[in-house]
Amino acid sequence: MPDSTSKAGGGPAGRDRLWRNARLATLAPDADGLGIVERGAVLASGGRIVYAGPESDMPAAARAETIDCEGRWITPGLIDCHTHLVYAGDRAQEFEARLRGASYEEIARAGGGIASSVRALRAADEDTLVRQSLPRLDALIAEGVTTIEIKSGYGLDLASERMSLRAARRLGRERPVSVRTTLLGAHALPPEAKGDKQGFIDGLVRDMLPAIAAEGLADAVDGFCEGIAFSPEQIAAVFAAAGRLGLPVKLHADQLSNLHGAALAARFGALSADHLEYTDAAGAAAMAQAGTVAVMLPGAFYFIRETQRPPIDAFRRAGVRMAVATDSNPGTSPLTSLLLAMNMAATLFRMTVDECIAGATREAARALGLLGETGTLEAGKWADLAVWNIERPAELVYRMGFNPLVTRIWRGQ
Amino acid sequence: MPDSTSKAGGGPAGRDRLWRNARLATLAPDADGLGIVERGAVLASGGRIVYAGPESDMPAAARAETIDCEGRWITPGLIDCHTHLVYAGDRAQEFEARLRGASYEEIARAGGGIASSVRALRAADEDTLVRQSLPRLDALIAEGVTTIEIKSGYGLDLASERMSLRAARRLGRERPVSVRTTLLGAHALPPEAKGDKQGFIDGLVRDMLPAIAAEGLADAVDGFCEGIAFSPEQIAAVFAAAGRLGLPVKLHADQLSNLHGAALAARFGALSADHLEYTDAAGAAAMAQAGTVAVMLPGAFYFIRETQRPPIDAFRRAGVRMAVATDSNPGTSPLTSLLLAMNMAATLFRMTVDECIAGATREAARALGLLGETGTLEAGKWADLAVWNIERPAELVYRMGFNPLVTRIWRGQ
Ligand SMILES: [Zn+2]
Ligand SMILES: [Zn+2]
Repeated sequence: MPDSTSKAGGGPAGRDRLWRNARLATLAPDADGLGIVERGAVLASGGRIVYAGPESDMPAAARAETIDCEGRWITPGLIDCHTHLVYAGDRAQEFEARLRGASYEEIARAGGGIASSVRALRAADEDTLVRQSLPRLDALIAEGVTTIEIKSGYGLDLASERMSLRAARRLGRERPVSVRTTLLGAHALPPEAKGDKQGFIDGLVRDMLPAIAAEGLADAVDGFCEGIAFSPEQIAAVFAAAGRLGLPVKLHADQLSNLHGAALAARFGALSADHLEYTDAAGAAAMAQAGTVAVMLPGAFYFIRETQRPPIDAFRRAGVRMAVATDSNPGTSPLTSLLLAMNMAATLFRMTVDECIAGATREAARALGLLGETGTLEAGKWADLAVWNIERPAELVYRMGFNPLVTRIWRGQ
Repeated sequence: MPDSTSKAGGGPAGRDRLWRNARLATLAPDADGLGIVERGAVLASGGRIVYAGPESDMPAAARAETIDCEGRWITPGLIDCHTHLVYAGDRAQEFEARLRGASYEEIARAGGGIASSVRALRAADEDTLVRQSLPRLDALIAEGVTTIEIKSGYGLDLASERMSLRAARRLGRERPVSVRTTLLGAHALPPEAKGDKQGFIDGLVRDMLPAIAAEGLADAVDGFCEGIAFSPEQIAAVFAAAGRLGLPVKLHADQLSNLHGAALAARFGALSADHLEYTDAAGAAAMAQAGTVAVMLPGAFYFIRETQRPPIDAFRRAGVRMAVATDSNPGTSPLTSLLLAMNMAATLFRMTVDECIAGATREAARALGLLGETGTLEAGKWADLAVWNIERPAELVYRMGFNPLVTRIWRGQ
């Protein structure tokens, strides 16, 4: 559930509001496709939806402030369920060097790669992190994003991970948007660990995780399970510790090779497993069984020029729910457009229009454990809406580099 | 040269203006790389640049309105040298159907493909075309575009091509931007031609081309040389006619197969040959010899999932200049971000940062025959500038879905 402090933020207060003469894509789970209502209305009270459906069946709302949508489309506010939005500096120089022919090894020797993001973050303070991250958040908000997940993982020691998560929480107070934070301590090995992965994981489980949990800074715990990062056994230890602390888990899984990360995530009842380019049918079946959402990250696939596509058909056959996110990060996906991520999911992964739109709304909410609160236009949920100047929902996926947002509503305002 | 009527448009008039305390990427042809000046200034008078270089060498400009750029970067205004921006409706439904598994044949049988854009354009009037095209133009302008080329080619009869080009000219009066129009009569065969390509080309050469030229509606003539469009011989006839009318030519060449379109374009001294995925070394050599610019269109490559990349290395070796453009069109590149086209040129085609930035400024100007007027920061050219909130030019190429533009100046204002 979004943090309750926002109730004091002024969002949910104020007059009842009614959006009428609209076309709705409700994304209601029991409806066909996008749950389309051609002549629809949404009524909000106290920041929550009290009605979303045909205008003809609408309850009386005489005192509500009324907005005539003139036939425009309303969808749930977009949800970016996988980002590394809080970081310092960028990696544009590395990008430039690679295009000039530098190898990954040369870049690493020159201090590049994730190590450079760790250095930059540790050298920054919380204010700097917030200031540098706000333009990225604003770009997403400008496209209708009302909920965003933000991971740590460039700090890799307690003080820096804590600073990262605090900066993420602050972003949620500086802007009208719901922020969900994730501790990604098991992202990479910091230089001071001198190659000792097991020792780093032991410290994470023993010290960092309990401290971050005690401060209430993380809504979930994530890891990177890959040859270049941490082994399934190391991730399992982190997940077990998260479970003892009552924190849900998720996983960067099977991106570059099949270490059976999807099945591992499912075994721990993970909210989501993300990337999944190399996931096999057994992994998909385990995810379906556990209700673990598959988060597709085509921005990273595109930017690092992967060729192995995630097994979309296997997920469909197994009944795995699919979300779409930006993976916004400086190294492998400097992407701050969820609409573009949707286009990439369609163009590169062949997800359908309905899958892409559900993936950035309902299924993204499910991937964050927030489906009871947002992600669809249904009574009882937060009134998180996006109003679009389009003729049909497919335009949200088809266009590239165009933003048809008219208005974005967060918790009724 | 941009049309002289704009002089009356108020742009070039007004006080002298000075941008100081800036970092410049001048793109001057005789400079290394981007022609960087770390502590630079640009002085404009009468809409033209009178000085661009180190602030220390700047001439006295006591009466000029002075803008402190606080260390921000200035590049030439961006130039999108290949668009089909003027069209009616869109093809989002087709996109959606294809993702659901419909074949190109099924879509064509259902009236889709380019035929649907021709039907929609013919059913529209000029006002509708302008109204529907303005949001696309505004998206490009918001990213710093100061010059744009717009092709006809969805009309395919005299009245509709004329309406298209008039709408394009009007866009240049409705917004502070230089518009260059191109007659793309040889784009596709209209239904009333009933499969008679040669008859259509004969009519184009005999009637449409001279009429459009007489009305001064086109700054250049383009064609689509491909198995699914027109043969090299048919294109040659169109080019010969354009030459007789004094109009420069350019060509959609070698996109899906090698019909030696690049060499054909070079033989007619074309300003540019565009797409070029299948161009061979002989084609590259001919282009270099003729000074024909290679216009890279990675948005279409991405959107229709091509796998054959244009021969960038061959162009480099031969000394062919390369531009980058959006190819903005409803069927194969619904892209309205030149920054994203630059990222795609780097990510998908491995063009360097400097090549991408030059490709959207200096080389794009060259591709339009406008290098004497815009495309670099040099005395004598229009003061077409973009001011960016970035730390280094590479950020313009590296980021995806982020717009760091601070201000855009067209002809000094
Ligand atoms: Zn990630
Ligand atoms: Zn084109």
